Amino acid sequence: MIQGIRNSRAKKHIFKHNNLEQLESLFAQYPKSTPKLIAFESVYSMCGSVAPIEKICDLADKYGALTFLDEVHAVGMYGPHGAGVAEHLDFDAHLKAGIASPPFKTILDRVDMITGTLGKSFGVVGGYLAASSNLVDWVRSTAPGFIFTTSLPPALMSGITTSIGLVREDIESRITQQKNVRYVKKEFGRIGIPVIPNPSHIVPLLVGNAADAKKGSDALLNQHKIYVQAINFPTVATGEERLRITPSPHHGKDVCDALIGSVDQVWKDLNLKRVPQWEEFGGHCGVGSANPVKVENLWTDEMMKLTNADLNDNVHNPVIKQLEVSSGIKI
Amino acid sequence: MIQGIRNSRAKKHIFKHNNLEQLESLFAQYPKSTPKLIAFESVYSMCGSVAPIEKICDLADKYGALTFLDEVHAVGMYGPHGAGVAEHLDFDAHLKAGIASPPFKTILDRVDMITGTLGKSFGVVGGYLAASSNLVDWVRSTAPGFIFTTSLPPALMSGITTSIGLVREDIESRITQQKNVRYVKKEFGRIGIPVIPNPSHIVPLLVGNAADAKKGSDALLNQHKIYVQAINFPTVATGEERLRITPSPHHGKDVCDALIGSVDQVWKDLNLKRVPQWEEFGGHCGVGSANPVKVENLWTDEMMKLTNADLNDNVHNPVIKQLEVSSGIKI
Repeated sequence: MIQGIRNSRAKKHIFKHNNLEQLESLFAQYPKSTPKLIAFESVYSMCGSVAPIEKICDLADKYGALTFLDEVHAVGMYGPHGAGVAEHLDFDAHLKAGIASPPFKTILDRVDMITGTLGKSFGVVGGYLAASSNLVDWVRSTAPGFIFTTSLPPALMSGITTSIGLVREDIESRITQQKNVRYVKKEFGRIGIPVIPNPSHIVPLLVGNAADAKKGSDALLNQHKIYVQAINFPTVATGEERLRITPSPHHGKDVCDALIGSVDQVWKDLNLKRVPQWEEFGGHCGVGSANPVKVENLWTDEMMKLTNADLNDNVHNPVIKQLEVSSGIKI
Repeated sequence: MIQGIRNSRAKKHIFKHNNLEQLESLFAQYPKSTPKLIAFESVYSMCGSVAPIEKICDLADKYGALTFLDEVHAVGMYGPHGAGVAEHLDFDAHLKAGIASPPFKTILDRVDMITGTLGKSFGVVGGYLAASSNLVDWVRSTAPGFIFTTSLPPALMSGITTSIGLVREDIESRITQQKNVRYVKKEFGRIGIPVIPNPSHIVPLLVGNAADAKKGSDALLNQHKIYVQAINFPTVATGEERLRITPSPHHGKDVCDALIGSVDQVWKDLNLKRVPQWEEFGGHCGVGSANPVKVENLWTDEMMKLTNADLNDNVHNPVIKQLEVSSGIKI
């Protein structure tokens, strides 16, 4: 997205992460008639935070801007049909309407352009732009990245079509992923591993310096056979270095417990800060704050059809269980 | 390639098509120590002309430039193994060495970077860069188009690997294509259809104005069921508009004859200029010149293992014959 903005040569302003006041002050510098486009993501992959999509649409209406939303880290995982966070925000209406449009203007309708990947959740390759036919025509006619790229082969298109169908129907996998995420976040919390709070499926563990983040990643790989990438500058700010984990629907209780035990050991071995130490430090990245901001999960208990029994039950995933039994290999 | 140069923001000069004198004068403006890169293609798709690769490498050596050669319209079709024109220029040595390196520095070795597509001849999707491991590392580490693109899925990589193996071995298809190209060019010549002379597989038919090129393309599609794209400005200069045809190894005599008959009819119906009219005009794009430049085919008779009998025989393609027999359908 950054590269596309650079290559466009359009005049640009960068607004602070999810800072609507600053975004509005940037808009207010220009007359409503000046063409503008606000480009943003739904789920931010490095911290798991989520953009205030509806409020950004309000500002876009007020100041005459087009909205461009990248759902790359959300498709497959949010919305009753996996269309992303914009669909998720009108969950019940889209659940009821199926893949037809609900009988009112939804947040999905308000966003002018939505892009997503057909890699990641869809497990294939390629991407898409969802917009009005006029906007899509405009991109088709003017975007060099589209015009000068060979079409995807028919076999791949067939795989993509099948994958979209499967992902769209499989709300259970979305719920199972969220159960696994909740379990991992809860267990990390219980032993003081500093999870940067967020409403999504991303589990960022605050380390706070580049050397330790690299050491933690290396130790997890070499001593525990778990590959977790260290996220350092320039991807995150200096001092906010982290390890980033994303449980999938296939990471059941056994593998999650193995992960949690390994991370606990690495935190001990490298003497990394736990939540109480971050509290002494005055809090950082939302970890150990005196006045923590309450984070509401995007997937509510109701959406997940969770009963109290479910919430108290330990999560497990039958697919993983079955693989372990049949192959004898721990995944 | 143009888009990549634009996005690089590097200072650029454009040299006239295959004009080595002008290229040298551009190089001569800078000290040898100033970093330079000359980017060019082997086969130019709109006119079928071929770059003087060896002479460009000589200039690059003299003035301290890296060479970047795009073989996108040549891979699969030139060289004993289909590696492109740079391989073709040391045909016998590469034929003898197989896929190992010949025992001397070849033209392939002299070019610093060679790119090609895995679409077109290879029939899949994707592309490649062949260069020293240091240069490849540099691109891997700095090219946003590489870094921010999802890897191709394993099934596709497997298809690509298989296709490369097949194309590498199948010198017969390369020869069959060239036979079909020679046949089409010869037959067009016989009835005065103006083929822009060139040493490659591209068969550009000079029309000379945009309206007629469009009409010719439409007539071929609507009246003869043959899809041939009109090439107009800005792809070619105004006045050089053309129809572009590329016979494949699977276009045997019957389909070529159908094409030639249809083009003949369209030229009659639209009253388009034939070679004698271009001669009266004083010649244009190499068609109907008083002193025509002799064009040597990249694939020589010797490379094609042609006997006199072969040269006098009408070309036919056994694959097409067989399909016609078994299916009863004309392709």
